[in-house]
Amino acid sequence: MSTEALFNIQHPILQAPMAGSGSTDLVAAVSNAGGLGAAGAAPMKPDVLRAHIHEIRGKTDKPFNINLFAPASERYDQSLELGPKARALLESYHRELGLAELPEARALFGPAEAQLDVLIEEKVPVISFHFGVEQDHVERIHRAGLKVISSATTIGEAKTLESLGVDAVIAQGAEAGGHRGTFLGNYRQALIGTLALVPQVVDAVDIPVIAAGGIMDARGIVACRALGASAVQMGTAFLGCSETRIPPLWLQELKSSSPSRATVTTAMSGKPARGLRNRYISEMESLDEPLLPYSLQYSVSAPLRKKAMDQGNPDFPTMWSGQGVQMLREMPAAELLESLVRESEELLSQLAGSPD
Amino acid sequence: MSTEALFNIQHPILQAPMAGSGSTDLVAAVSNAGGLGAAGAAPMKPDVLRAHIHEIRGKTDKPFNINLFAPASERYDQSLELGPKARALLESYHRELGLAELPEARALFGPAEAQLDVLIEEKVPVISFHFGVEQDHVERIHRAGLKVISSATTIGEAKTLESLGVDAVIAQGAEAGGHRGTFLGNYRQALIGTLALVPQVVDAVDIPVIAAGGIMDARGIVACRALGASAVQMGTAFLGCSETRIPPLWLQELKSSSPSRATVTTAMSGKPARGLRNRYISEMESLDEPLLPYSLQYSVSAPLRKKAMDQGNPDFPTMWSGQGVQMLREMPAAELLESLVRESEELLSQLAGSPD
Repeated sequence: MSTEALFNIQHPILQAPMAGSGSTDLVAAVSNAGGLGAAGAAPMKPDVLRAHIHEIRGKTDKPFNINLFAPASERYDQSLELGPKARALLESYHRELGLAELPEARALFGPAEAQLDVLIEEKVPVISFHFGVEQDHVERIHRAGLKVISSATTIGEAKTLESLGVDAVIAQGAEAGGHRGTFLGNYRQALIGTLALVPQVVDAVDIPVIAAGGIMDARGIVACRALGASAVQMGTAFLGCSETRIPPLWLQELKSSSPSRATVTTAMSGKPARGLRNRYISEMESLDEPLLPYSLQYSVSAPLRKKAMDQGNPDFPTMWSGQGVQMLREMPAAELLESLVRESEELLSQLAGSPD
Repeated sequence: MSTEALFNIQHPILQAPMAGSGSTDLVAAVSNAGGLGAAGAAPMKPDVLRAHIHEIRGKTDKPFNINLFAPASERYDQSLELGPKARALLESYHRELGLAELPEARALFGPAEAQLDVLIEEKVPVISFHFGVEQDHVERIHRAGLKVISSATTIGEAKTLESLGVDAVIAQGAEAGGHRGTFLGNYRQALIGTLALVPQVVDAVDIPVIAAGGIMDARGIVACRALGASAVQMGTAFLGCSETRIPPLWLQELKSSSPSRATVTTAMSGKPARGLRNRYISEMESLDEPLLPYSLQYSVSAPLRKKAMDQGNPDFPTMWSGQGVQMLREMPAAELLESLVRESEELLSQLAGSPD
């Protein structure tokens, strides 16, 4: 089945859910333009999530996707404490920015069970999970007549997701911005480039494969179609949309960065994620000390990252970015979707018409 | 200008030069089939190199490419000594395999100046350099009426190569097997996936861009053409060709490996390169001690790596591999070229004919 039929959308283009940077306007604009808009709901408490869904439904009657972080991510030892070197470094940053003392480490996301209850009650058309998926969640979603998808960063993860019954698998190449979806094994061994990952996942599973990682324009879309993907998921490409409303600092840094700056680090959240390297990442990584697990690391750095972002200080904030950053374009989401579709068609005719 | 016209070849498919695994039969078979065959000559003394070129010319009258490592790579401090932990580990391996004492560390490659003299005297049609290129070499090659190309792993490197006057730039994505071509900055920040690297390099330079990294079949070729590449360079894909004659162990390990095993390490040669992870890589990387620079690290591990390969012991040998390893096919090079060309045409018609 095509992903258009699977999700009841017009164009096989999915907006990546972005918890830190999305907006209901962006979700609605993408879905209204014939793609699949998406919201990252991992940090939302159930009542906030419900209100968020209602807000989206007030702006579009088209299908959309709500993303959760798999509950397995909540099963870390949440009683761990910040190491002495990391604490000293964070405290020095707090002094530098005039912040109060460090917050207690705590879990920032979920609980996924209660979040999923809301998504099912609200009949959200597409539910996606990052960091793997639970089989009973897949079954609950299917019993409700809804679709479920999840990300794989290796061939083995894709086969696992297929065996758990997801409707489609997102092959998340190493280029992708934000959190790596890796849920089996060492993330360093799961940094497989999109061009290599997608066809090998297509060969390994029988469900539709959605390509993600480094796709910024029609060139990436047509390339992924050639690799056998049924659809693409784009994240960084939507950061330049006027509906996204990321902080001005983040957008400005994206516009002046090369892909070499978009680095995979665990220093932000405790889980590997790709974002723009800054002083915080470099200094935190250079500590000879294990960091806190996800999402405790995220919570202790939260006031620092927020204050710096508000102040326009690039040294400390989280600024997720994929490796396609220099292809970023600024335009409304509807215009971006329309351009992607038109330019993909033009590129295909051009390629088919060109001699060998 | 098309790369076919630039190199006077029929199909825009370059075989990657592979010093450790190529053969004159492979070079000739690829060139005779309309691609651009290539030999990795970095380890060859000038007289060996000259004989190698004559051997290739005895098997094909078509253009081919000879690859050297840029002389800047020879400018490391060659007097450094193996650290105590690495020495102890290597000595324990030598005892385990019944080898004599460790060899003295020495430079294995070059001198590139004398090698280049031979290439120019022999009028080798295409000369490629890994690890950057020297401007006076580019000028000498052009004065001789020959072509010169080199690899870039970042946008900045591509612009540098263009400014030095190369005829085309190879955009080597992170998926690629063998040595990273990185010559500016930290290699960890130069692991950019092919799907993201190629279009950004295409946008940044005015010379033809040859895509490399993870390309194994028609899907990769058509994808790279969509990304704006003028041609592709494939390495791992040719390791399954009967003319390649890599050791049976290497081929067998390739056939049973997933992309997660193809890791970038400096433990083999002293420079970052992607190959199949084994005990040697894991244990050498876990030493809390800097390794020798390129190519000294290569030289001290040479007897060990060779003996293990000969014995069919996967624990120690060098087995370069890209991340597309599960797409490896075994067939003669002429058949592979013919398949790639035919399947690319079929895939393009299929894509152009399919609805959005």
